[in-house]
Amino acid sequence: MKLYSYWRSSAAYRVRIALNVKGVDYTIIPKSFRLEEHRAGDYLHLNPQGLLPALETDDGAVLAQSVAIIEYLDEVYSQPELLPKPPLERAAVRSMALSIACDIHPLNNLRVLSYLRRRLSQSEEAVNEWYRHWIAEGFVSLEALAARSSTAKRYCYGDSLSMADICLAPQMANARRFQCDITGFPTLRAISSHLESLPAFVAAHPDKQPDAGAS
Amino acid sequence: MKLYSYWRSSAAYRVRIALNVKGVDYTIIPKSFRLEEHRAGDYLHLNPQGLLPALETDDGAVLAQSVAIIEYLDEVYSQPELLPKPPLERAAVRSMALSIACDIHPLNNLRVLSYLRRRLSQSEEAVNEWYRHWIAEGFVSLEALAARSSTAKRYCYGDSLSMADICLAPQMANARRFQCDITGFPTLRAISSHLESLPAFVAAHPDKQPDAGAS
Repeated sequence: MKLYSYWRSSAAYRVRIALNVKGVDYTIIPKSFRLEEHRAGDYLHLNPQGLLPALETDDGAVLAQSVAIIEYLDEVYSQPELLPKPPLERAAVRSMALSIACDIHPLNNLRVLSYLRRRLSQSEEAVNEWYRHWIAEGFVSLEALAARSSTAKRYCYGDSLSMADICLAPQMANARRFQCDITGFPTLRAISSHLESLPAFVAAHPDKQPDAGAS
Repeated sequence: MKLYSYWRSSAAYRVRIALNVKGVDYTIIPKSFRLEEHRAGDYLHLNPQGLLPALETDDGAVLAQSVAIIEYLDEVYSQPELLPKPPLERAAVRSMALSIACDIHPLNNLRVLSYLRRRLSQSEEAVNEWYRHWIAEGFVSLEALAARSSTAKRYCYGDSLSMADICLAPQMANARRFQCDITGFPTLRAISSHLESLPAFVAAHPDKQPDAGAS
């Protein structure tokens, strides 16, 4: 498989973790957000959404949207499971994952920050405040959910790895990078520390990518 | 079942459609966004995410995040299917649904518009321009996807109803409400016109809700 990825994209980071967890062999095709390579003709033909990541299967099918890709990987490669079996539990895990994928991350995407800077003439300070605001809003609720559902503060739901953890680790990395105050989220911090020690997460880290440091 | 809903919330609108499509009996419990009832203690205890909608099952389990709720309904009530069976096709439908649920709608949520108005002192004109910008960005890619995958311009994927349609109709209603220029999206307009004629969609429309017109 080929993964169109950008080292700093946290949606791509999620998919890299999922691929590693599932033990899928894949090649990274780096695309630069800042150079707008994701808006160039050849990539846009592959993925009309013009966002990263996209996964190209060995048969040439191209999948977009990180959560859809992770669900696909979980359906095709059954072990280890990224969603529990009972529907209510699956819903709980998806709900935590989507609270990040829908309600935190899209607000802090590079294209949104660029809009704030360029079209709304916001200062770097105002942009950073925006960034931290949406992480804090999202983490308050995610902390409450994880405190209820994590049984050993190693994973978001119960005591096994799920799609919620795959979304949490990249979001926590972003929170640290933007110097968010994360002292109020002890459960999320404990879970993230554990996740960051797992080989599948270590190998997916932005700094370990072939395009690390690229603009 | 009980659905905590706000008539104008397009995420609640999605879930209302899904419940109607599946023929599930449910009671609407109206919560006002503008009066911040979704941030009040009793609701926050039920749904720590503090967002609408939330679905309370007859056993008292509470589910949040519209896409997670729709996936749950599809797993528990098998007919009619909201996702095709083959994994690649499921991924394509989820990808379209999530392109709305992650990359359009969260940017135009009331809480985000309030931030723009109050904290960034943006004019109504600038807020409306923001709103239209993200719909246009998202619809450009969704139009390309739907033009490829819709076989009769009645549904987003193939020629049967899916989760992608359930996300499209409320987003198109918002696009019209904010007077977005939708002339460039003929496939999305044709699909939406068809969807709007279906009883499950008609009954879920904001104007048909018990709290229609409420602040």
